[in-house]
Amino acid sequence: MRSAHSLAFRQFEEVLSDIKIKLLSTDDTAVLEYLSDLSIPSTSITSPFQMTWEADSDWEPEDPSAVSSGSCMLIPVPLTEREGKLLRSVGYAEAEPATSTYQFLDDDTFILHTSYGQSIAEERIWFVSDNVRCRSSVLRTSGGSGVLQTSFASEVRRMPAE
Amino acid sequence: MRSAHSLAFRQFEEVLSDIKIKLLSTDDTAVLEYLSDLSIPSTSITSPFQMTWEADSDWEPEDPSAVSSGSCMLIPVPLTEREGKLLRSVGYAEAEPATSTYQFLDDDTFILHTSYGQSIAEERIWFVSDNVRCRSSVLRTSGGSGVLQTSFASEVRRMPAE
Repeated sequence: MRSAHSLAFRQFEEVLSDIKIKLLSTDDTAVLEYLSDLSIPSTSITSPFQMTWEADSDWEPEDPSAVSSGSCMLIPVPLTEREGKLLRSVGYAEAEPATSTYQFLDDDTFILHTSYGQSIAEERIWFVSDNVRCRSSVLRTSGGSGVLQTSFASEVRRMPAE
Repeated sequence: MRSAHSLAFRQFEEVLSDIKIKLLSTDDTAVLEYLSDLSIPSTSITSPFQMTWEADSDWEPEDPSAVSSGSCMLIPVPLTEREGKLLRSVGYAEAEPATSTYQFLDDDTFILHTSYGQSIAEERIWFVSDNVRCRSSVLRTSGGSGVLQTSFASEVRRMPAE
């Protein structure tokens, strides 16, 4: 369940999504190709994964069956145990490849910063139980202080069927 | 702008609220009376404040003008610079007086834990710019792991008219 808030227009968006997260091998072909393009050695990465999603938004009322979907490869490049970079084959705010910086706060909240051409995104992910996590995002103008949109997702883990 | 997620029912709630926050004096009569009832010395508190709110929810479609409102006095009792207790004359999850514990994370995210009779609430507040803050809450059963509801608010500061 994801809610987005457009602050200037005081508009809410409600989205129901199915998200699949699949751990990839560090010698996965697509991973190695992506790293090769960026001249990053494969020994510097850990736990790459693939995210695919199907999202159903209430902002598409003319076609209730309209479902947007996508897929993205994410590759962590740790600098220390608590911080590093995250490579994304598709960005969050804009659909271009992106490099984010991440850190863990002292309660293990995961913080992700990404600069895009027109905007800056801060995302936070924290687990509220073993199988429920929250994810927030704040999107601001690349100039800096103008906050364009926030969003919040409550995500319930479902184990894949065998 | 506040969104609530009922996880079991996959239901969204959208709320538009006006919140007023007023700093009180540490020798305010209502503050001193509240402390006296709890046998807490007034020298141990800092920056008590009063919150009043008017909330308009989309869950009351039969009467679009229905606005819920309330008021609550909050009194921080710091233990150190980074943690302490927060006394509330009215609780968040249940309308009883409550004592929360708070702490600041290393990026100054404010975390508040409150145990009620039937539930446990965790709230987080963080500023994303000088005048925009985010506030999330997670409500779980007092047993522990069952997550009942989450919520997320994007709050824009408006200076009071003189």
